[in-house]
Amino acid sequence: MKPEPPKSRRPGLIRMPGPLLMKLPVITDIRGSLLVGDFKSLPFKPKRLFAVFDIPSKNTRGQHAHKKQHQFMICMRGSCSILLDNGKHKDEVRMFAPNVGLYVPPMIWALQHRHSEDSLLVVLSSGSYDPDDYIRDYERFLRAVRNR
Amino acid sequence: MKPEPPKSRRPGLIRMPGPLLMKLPVITDIRGSLLVGDFKSLPFKPKRLFAVFDIPSKNTRGQHAHKKQHQFMICMRGSCSILLDNGKHKDEVRMFAPNVGLYVPPMIWALQHRHSEDSLLVVLSSGSYDPDDYIRDYERFLRAVRNR
Repeated sequence: MKPEPPKSRRPGLIRMPGPLLMKLPVITDIRGSLLVGDFKSLPFKPKRLFAVFDIPSKNTRGQHAHKKQHQFMICMRGSCSILLDNGKHKDEVRMFAPNVGLYVPPMIWALQHRHSEDSLLVVLSSGSYDPDDYIRDYERFLRAVRNR
Repeated sequence: MKPEPPKSRRPGLIRMPGPLLMKLPVITDIRGSLLVGDFKSLPFKPKRLFAVFDIPSKNTRGQHAHKKQHQFMICMRGSCSILLDNGKHKDEVRMFAPNVGLYVPPMIWALQHRHSEDSLLVVLSSGSYDPDDYIRDYERFLRAVRNR
């Protein structure tokens, strides 16, 4: 007999292989809070940083996959949801604290939405900006992952 | 006759050699704002990221110099002031927007204060955390820069 699928899921649990939620140390005392992230603990070497903010909550960002570039996302303030799609499975992660980062490997379709008003997402990327590294068409993404 | 010293200074102008204010592109449209920072444009290779936030405004942070590590600071949200001291001259920079980053080379005494309630300072560093890289005693710092 096949086991029943779980009726409820812990939010933020990623079931597909590849993407990872990683804990980041945040040290808080009376002087304030300090978030620490050594690049040694990442699966790639960051070459670029970008940040998205002041995003209207009804808007989505992302909606593309990267062919080769790896990314690591930290929601430094506020919250947002990140939809991940590997062509077979979809998962959604709610990011709401700077002590958790999301690693997104290449060839994962990612979309950010439901940004809170104060949301600030900082992204480390493994390469310089390269328009050729983007797959912006979902059908093309599906063909590419199925032909791997 | 010696020229008169300027009566007023542009805030954020750094007169000492070494530290640099660098413009960062921020692209804003109806979908929100995007800050872009390629590590190629920095004078060092970042190996670590940290962030300070929830700092009480009466508190100071920093108050040390790094022997070898370089840093690049971006005030992603809110505002804070950074005092720079090379042992001969002092300068103060008010950081209040993510489109300006501050490069701080080694052997500059730096102190952060006057944090706004929502201030979030992201710092890229050229090395992993190393307690031996810090000079936390100001007199020792002064002796070190004078003996260089």
